[in-house]
Order: sequence, then structure tokens, then C-alpha cells
Amino acid sequence: MDKTLNVGLLGLGVVGGGVVEVLARQQEKIQRETGAKIQITKCLVRVGEDKSQIAQKYGFQLVTDINEIMIDSTIDVVVELIGKVHPAKDFITQALNSKKHVVTANKDLIAQHGVELNECAATNQVSLFYEASVAGGIPILRTITNNYLADDITNVLGIVNGTTNYMLTKMLEEGLSYDEALSKAQALGFAESDPTNDVDGIDAAYKMVILSQFAYGMDVSMDDLTIEGIRQVTPDDVFFAQKAGYKIKLIGRSKYVNGAIEVSVGPCFVANAHPLASIKNEFNGVYIESTGIHRSMFYGPGAGALPTATSVVSDLVAIANNCQKNLPAPLFNNYHRKTQLLDDTHSIDCYYMDIQTTHLEKIKEKLSGYTICNQHATTDAYQVILEKIAKDQLKELVNQLTEDAKMIRVMKVIENN
Amino acid sequence: MDKTLNVGLLGLGVVGGGVVEVLARQQEKIQRETGAKIQITKCLVRVGEDKSQIAQKYGFQLVTDINEIMIDSTIDVVVELIGKVHPAKDFITQALNSKKHVVTANKDLIAQHGVELNECAATNQVSLFYEASVAGGIPILRTITNNYLADDITNVLGIVNGTTNYMLTKMLEEGLSYDEALSKAQALGFAESDPTNDVDGIDAAYKMVILSQFAYGMDVSMDDLTIEGIRQVTPDDVFFAQKAGYKIKLIGRSKYVNGAIEVSVGPCFVANAHPLASIKNEFNGVYIESTGIHRSMFYGPGAGALPTATSVVSDLVAIANNCQKNLPAPLFNNYHRKTQLLDDTHSIDCYYMDIQTTHLEKIKEKLSGYTICNQHATTDAYQVILEKIAKDQLKELVNQLTEDAKMIRVMKVIENN
Repeated sequence: MDKTLNVGLLGLGVVGGGVVEVLARQQEKIQRETGAKIQITKCLVRVGEDKSQIAQKYGFQLVTDINEIMIDSTIDVVVELIGKVHPAKDFITQALNSKKHVVTANKDLIAQHGVELNECAATNQVSLFYEASVAGGIPILRTITNNYLADDITNVLGIVNGTTNYMLTKMLEEGLSYDEALSKAQALGFAESDPTNDVDGIDAAYKMVILSQFAYGMDVSMDDLTIEGIRQVTPDDVFFAQKAGYKIKLIGRSKYVNGAIEVSVGPCFVANAHPLASIKNEFNGVYIESTGIHRSMFYGPGAGALPTATSVVSDLVAIANNCQKNLPAPLFNNYHRKTQLLDDTHSIDCYYMDIQTTHLEKIKEKLSGYTICNQHATTDAYQVILEKIAKDQLKELVNQLTEDAKMIRVMKVIENN
Repeated sequence: MDKTLNVGLLGLGVVGGGVVEVLARQQEKIQRETGAKIQITKCLVRVGEDKSQIAQKYGFQLVTDINEIMIDSTIDVVVELIGKVHPAKDFITQALNSKKHVVTANKDLIAQHGVELNECAATNQVSLFYEASVAGGIPILRTITNNYLADDITNVLGIVNGTTNYMLTKMLEEGLSYDEALSKAQALGFAESDPTNDVDGIDAAYKMVILSQFAYGMDVSMDDLTIEGIRQVTPDDVFFAQKAGYKIKLIGRSKYVNGAIEVSVGPCFVANAHPLASIKNEFNGVYIESTGIHRSMFYGPGAGALPTATSVVSDLVAIANNCQKNLPAPLFNNYHRKTQLLDDTHSIDCYYMDIQTTHLEKIKEKLSGYTICNQHATTDAYQVILEKIAKDQLKELVNQLTEDAKMIRVMKVIENN
């Protein structure tokens, strides 16, 4: 017999509206394929928010008190789309404790409190799914869970923030400055009025924390990450990168070396031949190196109402499938290992270094063996690409150079190996 | 309690050896995550084939008589890696009828007899999985099944043959002719001594038949496809494409318009900004347009021992997961709709046309409104790009031009919309 899955939706903004639309459009197909009917019965909105038209059209009830959803025993799943940590965390905890499954797109919350919330879901024997929290429309989390168990992932490189990828694309293709690119992104709705979380790499870092859990079964906290944004990226960097055969991208990286991982976010030089270099504008891509498949990449929209809503509805379909078959509620991610962080001695990378100095001869001495470029012959900025070097050695080198430099900036270089 | 899944392997060639290696390497992880142990107990080899070393190392028995696997009631799954239709089809049918699950990488077989074999699996309540049959290491089939049920796919574009993509990459980047590129591919083991299936598009067509079943739930037969290979692609085509902002790629396409689909394989002009244009050498990519996610792409190795073996083992893991939970054996693809083929009036595309003529004025008359190029001013070959035109109209136009042309060749143009 067909089962009906009643959904309580928290938040009816851009993505919430998308979920309503996608569910309405796909309801028949979902019911045909899974044998379950998924329907929104109640939706939490803010006091004074008028959403009566959409509620009437799609036949659900608007509520302004969260308890009307929590104590409603007919509601099987809560979809949380209000974002941020508070009060979302309380709402989700309450829903799980009320034995309701939860679907969320909330990366801030999952990155910071996912361990606790997953434990709460397990205790209550309900599911907590969050496919939409990473790379919006790209079905990356479920794909890692379903398809990489027979493989060992050794590196995850992600362009997981659409705003900054759009800005860097415009800086390269239209020669815009950082500020011009930001204004353009804001005008088009790709960046918020306060772009901090995007441009400072925080948003990408949340996603890398979640990706690391799925790829390696290891829980890292935001404090374990080195996070750098794109505010310091100049048109000169972009220009030098281009001349040297690279594109600058904000890359989230989660690298595995001998049982330990290192997770970081920062602007990187990405070799033109690398698949990530061709990901433009607001698109996202997650590139995976592994011992079996070797190299794979998943590309798609990182945000947007319909793509994100489609991921949310995919989670609902997975829950419906389980309920229809009367299966125990699965965890989203079963993979768990002891978390081990990589130390600086074993973290080996190539780097780009931009040095401002009036003591060129001394710098040259300390960088003997390297080719030092002076991209703009009229300035005292010098560029050098360092071959593989351990992070502790790099730090020491930067220390040595600091005496003779006005400024040193460093970015990782990602070759197409 | 942990369940043991005994595997009978048919074929111990390149991919078979890879499966043995991947299973050995991942056995512990698979057992920890699924609670099931997967082990190869018997392997079918040809009479006279000496594989005793590998059999001894990994602890399985070699047999030369298929019945030793079929009548062995301790074997739960048969992995078929001998390829081609005969005798693989009989072996798989026999295994399914013996209530054994089957995993295969055999695209020829599944494309031509998949419907019948899936019915046989359903009747016997066992699973028939074939993730490795399309795009080797890219987990595309299970991803479509798991993640696109909440979406509607409208177009699948695939670079699904590594050999031809390698050849076309070399023709572009190194200015090689078709013959030179083929020799190079053969020397490197990317092309077989008889490359017919690859260069004539047959291999890609098999994969597009399977992708169409997953994307639209529709069964098309090879006769329903328009199939063209790359034998006719000249360095001049590659050169003109490049000047016009395109790359020539062998594209498998499965397009959905108003309830009907059109599946084809042929060399296409792909706009440089399109994600498929950046897929180089032996790599594969499957690009999906849909109403929800809009644009997504899955990239990875289309062949190779370990990537393909990893997909095979992923199928084994899925079977192990089901057995461990005592679930009914699922079909690989549940999506079924009535097959409807698109007619020529509703098949609208852009095209590139290469016309050899000594009656330029007459051609110009018939193509008034179009820009006609003469890439090599010294030859009588003219190039034109046609804006959107229905297939029946195109055929009529080609008919009209034929009177005044020595030769006309046509390729689809894929823009980055």
C-alpha cells in the first residue's frame, strides 16, 4: 500500500519556494517510482510574512509557532531551510527527539554541530539528510557514500563557493579588480550585501568539513582548518598566473596522507589542464583523487532555488524509499575513523610566492636555484613558483625572507598530475 | 551476524585482475562498513590459460567448466567479465536462473539484450548490476537512479568513448591526421588492433542506449540510433572548428522533447565554453541537463583496469548491503516509460556543414542569409554553420545542395546554453 510522507517545512524563502515547486512537479513520478506520496502539510513562516497565496495554491497550512509542527504527530519529516545555527539547531534537535526525520541544507550548522546532530538522529532512529548543504545541486555526498566504499579517497579538491568563483572568473576574463568583481556579483545576486562568509572562505570551509566526513570518515572542526579568502587576490596575481599557465581559484582541499588529513581553503594556482580550471562563473566542482577510480569530478550549480531544492527533494525521496520498505532509518554517512591531522613536516605542496622587496639581491641569495620573475618591471614585486616543499620548511623560508621583504604572500599551486 | 558473499568470477583478464586486486585491498573496509565479507571462491579461465599464481595468491579455485560455478550452490554472485554477447548472455541467463546475482561490465550485451536479462533477473528475484558498462570508473548509472528521481532529465550528452576522445585530442593539440592519431592510440593501448567499434561510434552507441534507459526509462534499440564515427573527421574540420570557437568531440546524445527521445552518436562541434569541451585525452564525461539541477557533469576515466574494477566492486557492495539487510533484490533501474521516438520535424539543432563544390554561386543562392567560409582559399571546400533547423528541413536543404556539390558533410553544433 502506498505510504504518505507528511512534511513540515521550516522557511519559505528562495529554496523553500523551490522545494514546494519541485515537489509539486515531481510528486507523480516520485509516487510511481517509490510507492510513496510526499506532501507538505505545514510550513513555518515568520510573523507578518504573507505567504498565503503559495500556501493556498499548494494546499498546506502556514504556522508561525514551531510547536504546531513539532507536536503534530502526523508530520513524518521536517525540512529545515531557515539557515544559520540559531534557532535551526534547536528546531532540528526537537524534531529528531520527536522521532521525525530531518532534511536540511544548512552547511553552517552541519559543519559545526553535525556530529552531535547525527548522534541525536541515531539515538532516535530517524534519518538526518543534508545533500543540499554541499555544492547545492551536485549530488556529491550520496555519491561518495554509495560509490566510493569500494575505493580509497586520497584527495578532495573543491570549488565549492559560487560567489568567489564568479568573482575570480570576472577578474580573469574581464580584467576586473576585486572590488569591481564583488560589486558585479552583488548586482547579479551572486553575492550578499555582507559577503564575508563567501569571500573569506568560511562558506567553503563549512563544506570541506562535511566533505571530509564523507570522504575519510573523519570529523574535523573549523579550528583544524587553515582558511584564507580571496580579498588579497590582485589583478597582478591573476595576470601572473595566466602567463605561467594557471588560473586562480578558491580551492577547498582535504588531503589524505598515511592515515592523516589536512583540510584547508585558500586561493590557489590551478594548472590550466586541471579539470577544475575550466569551472567558470557561479558553478561548483568537486574533484576526487582515489586509489581505484583515480580521478573523477562532479560539476554543477552550487546554489540557486531549483538545484538546491532538487537536492532537498532527493533526500525526501530517500527517506520515502526507506519508510515504504519499512527499513530502519539509515545514517547519511556511516563512515567513521579516528581523526588524525597531518603535521607540517608531511604536508608537501608547490607554492606561488609574491614578494615585495627593495633588497632583491638578498632575496635572490635566499632563493638561489629558483626563477624569480618581475612581472611588472616598474614595481618592486617579485614572483616565484616553489617546487614541492614541506609546510614547515616553507614557514622557515618565509621567516628568512621576511627580514628583507615588505610583504610576502603565498598561494598553493595545484598541478595536473 | 556477518554474511559472506561468495563470488564466481568469469574471466581473469585486465578488468578481472583489477577486481581481484580491488576486492583484496578493500575487503576489510567493505566488511567494516556493510557487515558483509565479499570473497572470490572460483574463477572461470580458458583451457590452457595459466593463472595459477594469482589464484594461489588470492586463494580461489580456477575452473575451465562454467558448470562448476553454476551448480555451486555456495556461490551467491557471478561477475561476468568475458565481454561480447556470446557466450556471456548464456552464462548470465544461467546464473540468474540459478538464483545467483550477476554483476557485469558488458555494454554490448546490456545494450542489446538488457531488457530480456533484466526481466530474467526480476523473475528470479536476484539483482543484475552493470555500473561498469558505461563510462568505466564514473559512477553514473547509480547516480542517475539515486539522485535524479526528484528531477526530470531533458538531455544527456556524453563523451563515452576514451579511444576516440584521445584521438580527437591529439588531432587538435598535435595536428595529427586521423591515421596518425589512431596509430598513436594503438601504440599506447588506448585503441585495439581492430578499432571498428570505437572509431565507428558503436561502443558509444551501446552506452547511450543504457544511459537512455536510466535517464528516461525508455528502451531504445541500436536500430533506433543514428550512429556516425570519426573516420571522416579531417584536420581541416578540426582547424575550422578551432577558429570558430569549437572543439570536435565524438558525442553521444540522448535528447528528450515533449515525451519523445532521440538518441544519436556522431562527431560534433562543441563550443569551447561548454564543460564537455575541456574533457581531454582518454577521459570520459557525461553531461546532464534537467529541469531541477539544470546542468551537471560527471567526469572520470572511461576505462582502465582499476577504475572499471572499482565500479564492479561497487556493484558487489550494493548487493552485499541488500543481502546483509535481508532485503528483496532490487532492479538496477526501476524507471520505465513507454518508449517514444522523436520525429524529424521536432528534432531541432544547429549544424556545421562542409561543402565541396565548383558551383559556389549556386550554393550561395541556396544558402542565402548564411555566412559561407572558405577556410583554405586554395581549395573548393566551403564551411557554414547553420542556426537552429529541423532535421527534415536539413535533409531537404542537403538534397537541394547535392545537385551542385561534390561532397557534403554535416556535424551537429552544441552550444553552451
